[in-house]
Amino acid sequence: MSALSKDDIIAYFKDLQDDICRQLEAADGQGQFHEDQWERAGGGGGRTRIIQGRHIEKGGVNFSAVHGPMPERITQALGVEPGDFLATGVSIVLHPVSPQVPIIHMNVRYFEMSNGQWWFGGGIDLTPHYIDRQQARYFHEQLKSVCDKHHPSYYPEFKKWADDYFYLKHREETRGVGGIFFDRLSGEGGFTKDTRFAFVREVGELFAPLYVKLMKEKKDMPYGEREQSWQRIRRGRYVEFNLVWDKGTKFGLDTGGRTESILMSLPPLAGWTYMHEVEADSPEAETQSLLKKGIDWLRLA
Amino acid sequence: MSALSKDDIIAYFKDLQDDICRQLEAADGQGQFHEDQWERAGGGGGRTRIIQGRHIEKGGVNFSAVHGPMPERITQALGVEPGDFLATGVSIVLHPVSPQVPIIHMNVRYFEMSNGQWWFGGGIDLTPHYIDRQQARYFHEQLKSVCDKHHPSYYPEFKKWADDYFYLKHREETRGVGGIFFDRLSGEGGFTKDTRFAFVREVGELFAPLYVKLMKEKKDMPYGEREQSWQRIRRGRYVEFNLVWDKGTKFGLDTGGRTESILMSLPPLAGWTYMHEVEADSPEAETQSLLKKGIDWLRLA
Repeated sequence: MSALSKDDIIAYFKDLQDDICRQLEAADGQGQFHEDQWERAGGGGGRTRIIQGRHIEKGGVNFSAVHGPMPERITQALGVEPGDFLATGVSIVLHPVSPQVPIIHMNVRYFEMSNGQWWFGGGIDLTPHYIDRQQARYFHEQLKSVCDKHHPSYYPEFKKWADDYFYLKHREETRGVGGIFFDRLSGEGGFTKDTRFAFVREVGELFAPLYVKLMKEKKDMPYGEREQSWQRIRRGRYVEFNLVWDKGTKFGLDTGGRTESILMSLPPLAGWTYMHEVEADSPEAETQSLLKKGIDWLRLA
Repeated sequence: MSALSKDDIIAYFKDLQDDICRQLEAADGQGQFHEDQWERAGGGGGRTRIIQGRHIEKGGVNFSAVHGPMPERITQALGVEPGDFLATGVSIVLHPVSPQVPIIHMNVRYFEMSNGQWWFGGGIDLTPHYIDRQQARYFHEQLKSVCDKHHPSYYPEFKKWADDYFYLKHREETRGVGGIFFDRLSGEGGFTKDTRFAFVREVGELFAPLYVKLMKEKKDMPYGEREQSWQRIRRGRYVEFNLVWDKGTKFGLDTGGRTESILMSLPPLAGWTYMHEVEADSPEAETQSLLKKGIDWLRLA
């Protein structure tokens, strides 16, 4: 039996938020996070932190821990019995200034119910405006390395899950180069709350150093109106994914979540051009050709 | 028994599209519609027409007539028996260049099934970046005038339906000043296919002269970065409505509709600012205060 309490997990996620914010502020070199604390009518609340910096144009690093009687829509959506619940986690989206730097998303979360059921979920995925095969490979290597320490099935399973989840069905394209996505990691199959939590912690702690490295490699690359125009198109697709397909966003908006915290994921500026077509043999065409499920990024570069 | 055939209705909608495009081109004075014809694998197709003009920054005027065996998702969504269907209509969204000119949407449509069931649907709603009470009043007067010719219950019922439909629940705000929205207008309650169609035709024919008048009144008003910034915010809300709440958009994207025709409704450029707040006593605050259900625009100005 684990001695790990829900308060331990909540305290950890708060520390993780603090730690990630410090690393991102240091890497940006100019922007500072602005915090809004909010409370949920039904119980609990959160700390939404937003940065508008020199390299990160709009970034959100949110912590929340909400609890109370489960709303009926949640019991229905999860297929569980009524009771009390706790949902806590850290959720991040960063939109960089430069189209050369990728957009990134990370989430780690824990859910438990008064009947004793619990699980972890989360993931990291990368959305480069311009896909750099070396960066995509490095990104996946780092994810695989963390996964492999915990279970050999984690990386292949969670990589496929990300391909399937971060997918714009109406465009037949992935959101970016994927990453890992996982949900309902419980005590089944020989795992414990401690071993699951150890994995989730490593995912959370990988995020900041990994993104800072990718950002630093790209932040000084030149770009102009062409690249910014493409960035607006790619950001438009990001909006489409989040508003049309992302289950968390839809669920949050539909069940009275804090709108501004949920929609911090939307870019500062996005564009839509009817029938936008990329030029043949261009960097944009190269990126478009790689927005597919099932690419083995570890072997591509 | 009406002699009105489905081919009559399809032919009418095509003519309506032609007529509206001519009027909008004349009013824009520069832009011309570019047409894409497309076919649907299951049967039928459409003519998507897009304009990028001097006053209309991005506008779509789409005709479609699709038919064939009803996909299971459609029978489920509508709660009807399997069979063949026809869905035809004209659908329009116009995003003006100037933040002083309102965004507008219009749709008229007809649906029938092989079992003989049929209905009309549609609506017009106006989304000013800056609400002008006189224009809102005139817009509603015109809608009421068309409605009243056909049934005294139409305007009050369809005006309320628009308030309820064009509503961003997660923002607790309406998309704009509303208009009229109606669906499933069938032969029940003393109506016939002819009388319903006569109403729908008048709605379709009201659209172009009404919008052209509103546009002409506003197109030469000055504006600067402040108004354009607010326009991007309002356009962001338009995106949120269309991608999160609009049933037609979601249904189309989910059932393999033509993505570029469906998403022609999205603005050329939109923005999201965390916790954007309007300045007290500003024109933006005036607009924000009027984004509410239940306003009687006929008596407000």
